[in-house]
Amino acid sequence: MRVFGIDCGTEITGYGVVDTDEGSRNPQLICRAFGGIRLSKQKTMAERLKQVYDDLSGALEEWKPEVVAVEEVFYSVNAKSALKLGQVRGVALLAAAMQALPVAEYAPLKIKSSVVGYGLAGKEQVQFMVARLLELAEPPEPPDAADALAVAICHIHTAQTLEFQGGRR
Amino acid sequence: MRVFGIDCGTEITGYGVVDTDEGSRNPQLICRAFGGIRLSKQKTMAERLKQVYDDLSGALEEWKPEVVAVEEVFYSVNAKSALKLGQVRGVALLAAAMQALPVAEYAPLKIKSSVVGYGLAGKEQVQFMVARLLELAEPPEPPDAADALAVAICHIHTAQTLEFQGGRR
Repeated sequence: MRVFGIDCGTEITGYGVVDTDEGSRNPQLICRAFGGIRLSKQKTMAERLKQVYDDLSGALEEWKPEVVAVEEVFYSVNAKSALKLGQVRGVALLAAAMQALPVAEYAPLKIKSSVVGYGLAGKEQVQFMVARLLELAEPPEPPDAADALAVAICHIHTAQTLEFQGGRR
Repeated sequence: MRVFGIDCGTEITGYGVVDTDEGSRNPQLICRAFGGIRLSKQKTMAERLKQVYDDLSGALEEWKPEVVAVEEVFYSVNAKSALKLGQVRGVALLAAAMQALPVAEYAPLKIKSSVVGYGLAGKEQVQFMVARLLELAEPPEPPDAADALAVAICHIHTAQTLEFQGGRR
């Protein structure tokens, strides 16, 4: 299974590609790629959204994942930032839909629990554990890419749990 | 000048196309088209966003406007609805950017003042005045289409004021 994680942001949108060998009970996670799409403040909002869309679409075409994983909406931000973040999230979801890819959403607490084992973990703990789980020499930069890899790992862990539970029935 | 107005919504996104003869001091407004993109609740969010994007892109290609006009963000909604609305707004702005069209944004108060002459006008007053200004036999339906035509009219009025002020210098 290949999962494409996206961490939407109004300044930087992170992405990460994680593979796993299916079927194994203790499968390995392999990081294929990660990066951050940094948005220019010189551009208009419409141009910035086009950049996110074009870059994500290009990466999806290149890596051909089976599924896209994104963080669920975090509601406690204010309405102004929520609307801006929503705009970026909209074009990210569109990029997935345009390539007929299913989208899985995970709550921030679930992602952190899945990666760090603790739902209230900080950014640095997530970066550290993502590097460790993926056997990277250094924590992924920007942190947004680490968050994108984290949601991809969360999807793999969740899919495995479901499969395992199904197998025990 | 041909203006393409968009009124983003999480259930229905309205659009409307308005032409005007430039240069004249008392120019006529001509309504070319309007409609509403109704989103299916059966579909996933990503699929709904694809529908909005595809339908708006198709209408922009058909009508080839010079500019796209949208309502500015209305901040007093809660974060949850703001994020949902932002997602729709993101793909609408993307549709404009993909066809290299400039986007003009107007505050709700300005749009209502421009169309009804009163910033706190209700939905029905907007529908009524849009029908009158565009010489339509009936108020445009759905109301979201009337709102989209209103923002297009607002852009034409504003562009004329700017031109007139420029001419007086």
